[in-house]
Parts: sequence; C-alpha cells; structure tokens
Amino acid sequence: MILPEKTIERLSKYRRVLINLNFQQKDYIYSHELANLIHITPEQVRRDMMLIGHSGTLRRGYEVKQLIEKINSIIDGNTVQYVTLVGVGNLGRAMLNYLKNKNKYLQIIACFDNDQDKINKMCCGIPCYSINEAEEQIKKLNINIAILTVPTNVANEVADILIKAGIKGLLNFTTMPLKVPSNVYLEEYDMITSLEKVAYFTQFIE
Amino acid sequence: MILPEKTIERLSKYRRVLINLNFQQKDYIYSHELANLIHITPEQVRRDMMLIGHSGTLRRGYEVKQLIEKINSIIDGNTVQYVTLVGVGNLGRAMLNYLKNKNKYLQIIACFDNDQDKINKMCCGIPCYSINEAEEQIKKLNINIAILTVPTNVANEVADILIKAGIKGLLNFTTMPLKVPSNVYLEEYDMITSLEKVAYFTQFIE
Repeated sequence: MILPEKTIERLSKYRRVLINLNFQQKDYIYSHELANLIHITPEQVRRDMMLIGHSGTLRRGYEVKQLIEKINSIIDGNTVQYVTLVGVGNLGRAMLNYLKNKNKYLQIIACFDNDQDKINKMCCGIPCYSINEAEEQIKKLNINIAILTVPTNVANEVADILIKAGIKGLLNFTTMPLKVPSNVYLEEYDMITSLEKVAYFTQFIE
Repeated sequence: MILPEKTIERLSKYRRVLINLNFQQKDYIYSHELANLIHITPEQVRRDMMLIGHSGTLRRGYEVKQLIEKINSIIDGNTVQYVTLVGVGNLGRAMLNYLKNKNKYLQIIACFDNDQDKINKMCCGIPCYSINEAEEQIKKLNINIAILTVPTNVANEVADILIKAGIKGLLNFTTMPLKVPSNVYLEEYDMITSLEKVAYFTQFIE
C-alpha cells in the first residue's frame, strides 16, 4: 500500500522529533505527547499509527525505539537510495552541507555543475562532475534521486537531462515549475514564494 | 479582502514567471499560455484573475505589464517591509544570498547570530547583530518579518524572542515545528521532510 503524501510528511516529522529531542532515552511516548511536539491533534497521531499498523498500549503509549524503526522501514524501506545534487552555486552548496548525512539511507554521492573550477574536485566533501557526464555517472552510480538547485533559466533543460539519465525522484528548489513524465516523482519548493506569502499575510496583522 | 494562501502562491509564481521569461517584451499573454508556464489549467488562471479583479480581452489576453503591477500591488501592497534572517550558519548564509534583492519591497536589513566572529560585522552584505540585541534592533529597524535558520534545538526559544520583539511574520526553515500566537503568521518548510518524501515515493516507481 502506498501511503498518502501528508502521512509521509508527518511520519518524517515524528521520526525527526523523536530523534532530535533524544526521546530515545525515554522508552514510551503517548500519542498526545507526540502530537504536542509537532502541534497536531492526538487523533491525527492515532490515525497515522493505525494506518501504518503500529499499536501502543493504553497505559504506556508507543514504544519509542520500535516506532522509529517502524518509520525507518516505511520511509527508507531499509534500502539505501543514492542521491545527486545538481547546480553547486550558493544555494546548492548550502543544501549539500545541510542535507548530507541527515539520513543514512539517503546518500548524496555525487554533484554536477558546469563550472570548470568545480568539476572533478570535491564540493562540500562530495565529488563534482561535469553536467555533460550526468547521464553516464548517474547510471554508473545507480543514482535515482536528484536535488535541483541550478539557475532558473536552465532548470527545464537540466531536468530533462536528469530524467533521460534515469532519475526517478526530483526535488526542485528552483523557482521554475517543472513538467515531468508520470513515472517521475516531483516535489517542488519555491523559497521566494514562501517569503512573499509571509509578506502578504503579515500586512493584515495588527 | 484577504486572498486564500493558494491564490497568493500562484500570484507569486505568475509574477516570477512573467518576469523571469522576459515576457515584458511581449505586451499580452493568454490565460492558456500563463497556465502552461506554471503547469496548471487555464481555468485556474482565469479564476485567479477574476478573484483579483483583473480582466483581459478575448482577442489578446492579459496586458503583461498591467498584470505584473496588479500582482505587485496585491502581494507587496506597494509598501516596503523589513526582514531579518536569524541564524547565519551554512543554511542561513545561503538563504541570505539567495533571498536578498529578490523583491524590492522585501528588504533584508539585518541578521542575527550568537557567534562572536560574526557579530557587528557584515554577513553576505547584511549587518549582523548579537541575538541578545534582537529585541532592541528589531524595534529600532521596524522589522516585522523573520526568516529562521537557527539550529533545531534553539528554534523555539529564538522564535519566542523574535515574537516578543514584534515579529509578525515568520518563515521557519528549521526542522522544528513551532507554535506561535494567533497574531503571528507562520510558514514552515522542512527540506529534510521533502527529501524523505521524494525518497519514499521514488521506491514505488519502476
């Protein structure tokens, strides 16, 4: 069964909060405590747990380690997926530093750029290749997820190259909305839109 | 009238696409062309235009410059809002470089950190102050929007300081979900959750 997107988002947050707050030192957690940590309702937590077939006890709640492992098995499927980041400018480098080593099942093992000063060197500890080698390297390294941080005006073109190379999951941080074939999973996030949204709604606050 | 969040997101995208693609050189654009550029339906574009009271002509579509100006007046309200970024680590610096100068009505005029090496210096061209001075500076500089890029474990504490200082809009890039009073507009984005979501759904693609 493929779980809904919103459920996956919450599972990712449950796991991070449990790990972040060192809740591992606590053996059990109640649904209302977990709900409180990510500011949702206990009912929502219980619905999610039912959906993933995870049960707690009325007296002590959910066993924390077991819950983390359950979420691991769902999100990561206990198999490593290889990831690349494409476009190692300011934003790209920051994302590389921020996202690498955050999840042992998601390994960023290569990045791509068209800048001769970066190609065939290490960028933030990750080998950087020429975008012209993308197809060859992506196939060779068995990479199936790409993070896109190239300039807006080449976003479409680069996405096409990546998809041709076999990328199946794309996280697009450029401000250019992409169109991808139905056998590619696309997640887009536009930081400028978010900031403009905050600005708009802030105007109405007294 | 306060517009819905999704409408504001699309208006921000219409505007960026129109500007990005140098559509200014073109005088008119049809709803289906605009729709195509951000991969939505022409009906959605027309509903949004009706909602903001912007009309085009059947023969030539929407006047591009007029539409950009209309969106300016809605999102930015033709008044400058001052913005700060808090937490000038890797992610913070990247966001600073990426978001500054993107919108003349949203001016990032200060950043805050607790690192003595950064305080009272310029960071990416923006003056950096001690987080201990946040309340004083935010009031003095008339800042009402903050971008939060501090480490997860201090996110709540720093958000409280900012809200106490008068911040009305908060863009939270940490992985810690925040709880804010009802008179603060909060937008949260968790990059790790997005990447994990891509990883999850990519598993099911053949």
